[in-house]
Amino acid sequence: MTRAVIPDTTIHRLPLYLRCLLEAQERRMPVVNSVEMAEMCGTNAAQIRKDLSYMGELGTRGIGYDVKALITHISSALGITERRRAGLIGYGRFGSALLSYSGFPERGFEIVAVIDADPEKVGTQVESFAGPITISPVEDLEKALIDAHVDLVIVATPAQVAQELADRAIAAGVKAILNLAPVRLSHPDDVAVRHVCLSTELQVLSFHLAQKTLNGQ
Amino acid sequence: MTRAVIPDTTIHRLPLYLRCLLEAQERRMPVVNSVEMAEMCGTNAAQIRKDLSYMGELGTRGIGYDVKALITHISSALGITERRRAGLIGYGRFGSALLSYSGFPERGFEIVAVIDADPEKVGTQVESFAGPITISPVEDLEKALIDAHVDLVIVATPAQVAQELADRAIAAGVKAILNLAPVRLSHPDDVAVRHVCLSTELQVLSFHLAQKTLNGQ
Repeated sequence: MTRAVIPDTTIHRLPLYLRCLLEAQERRMPVVNSVEMAEMCGTNAAQIRKDLSYMGELGTRGIGYDVKALITHISSALGITERRRAGLIGYGRFGSALLSYSGFPERGFEIVAVIDADPEKVGTQVESFAGPITISPVEDLEKALIDAHVDLVIVATPAQVAQELADRAIAAGVKAILNLAPVRLSHPDDVAVRHVCLSTELQVLSFHLAQKTLNGQ
Repeated sequence: MTRAVIPDTTIHRLPLYLRCLLEAQERRMPVVNSVEMAEMCGTNAAQIRKDLSYMGELGTRGIGYDVKALITHISSALGITERRRAGLIGYGRFGSALLSYSGFPERGFEIVAVIDADPEKVGTQVESFAGPITISPVEDLEKALIDAHVDLVIVATPAQVAQELADRAIAAGVKAILNLAPVRLSHPDDVAVRHVCLSTELQVLSFHLAQKTLNGQ
């Protein structure tokens, strides 16, 4: 099977397109063209046509894209035709906010395991969208992830322990990590890691504010 | 004053460099070279030298960078030589986690205003690192942001109200927004917006997992 290599920038826009298409489906639009999609997504039509060309020949010139078919194709590319099972490592303030974040189940993800180091939390039951979960002790991290058949993990621990716990998750077979700890994780090439650091995002914004001041705006 | 335009990708790495330099300072290293920095940052030395060249002539060949001077330069470029004041719009689970997130004050930001629509929350006092804050009603959003002299806002509201509240913040003079609501915000060109969507990050990871399955890894 030959497939075109999809650029990273395109991959990052696929979730947005999927969200717009689901919105189109809700509005009972059977077909959507790139101009309509651009309006819904807040991007431009030429880019949408180019990005979607990587999904195969899905559009009909002058008519548009079949909404249902395109949803199926993008969902399939994103690997979310079935639900993805996530393990949550770290049940602090962020961790608990994540467990009750409805955006995850709406977008195809459920948290099926929760791991923490705090003896007061371990063994207590918490409610996830997938049902009740008993918090596992960090000593049993590998067992908890394997027993729950997780596809990926979310690291929401303090910076100091993030690398060690990520290493253990990787050794237990995890191939994808969303890292929310404020530290860069080293990892083997065959493990996909996304790092979200809110302080870095604020500093990038601050940079733009500083530039405006320098430019006298 | 002429300044080189710093590429976006470089801007995104400056916070990381700053963190490594602060670590070097803690370890009482007066000078650091690009190879040492690369090791601390988990990146490569050539890229560091290129990125830092945008900061001016700061390194001495064969010796390295003066840690203190480089911290000052990067902090200045990032506009965080003084503390940045942030307004938090939305005090749900994520919002309350953000208020107690020590990463913000450590990296030069303090939350100085909190706004919510829930009458049960409005008027109650919450603890921030900058001291106690009384939650302002969403009706007084503009006044709350102006009175607190905020430089930027963090939008942590449900998707449905994010655009409207962002528009009002912009009308009140806000020039930088960190958007955590799962919706893309439209905004004037002179307003900097960063969008963090954790569901999108998980979908990108899922894409990589799907590729591995297709490739038989």
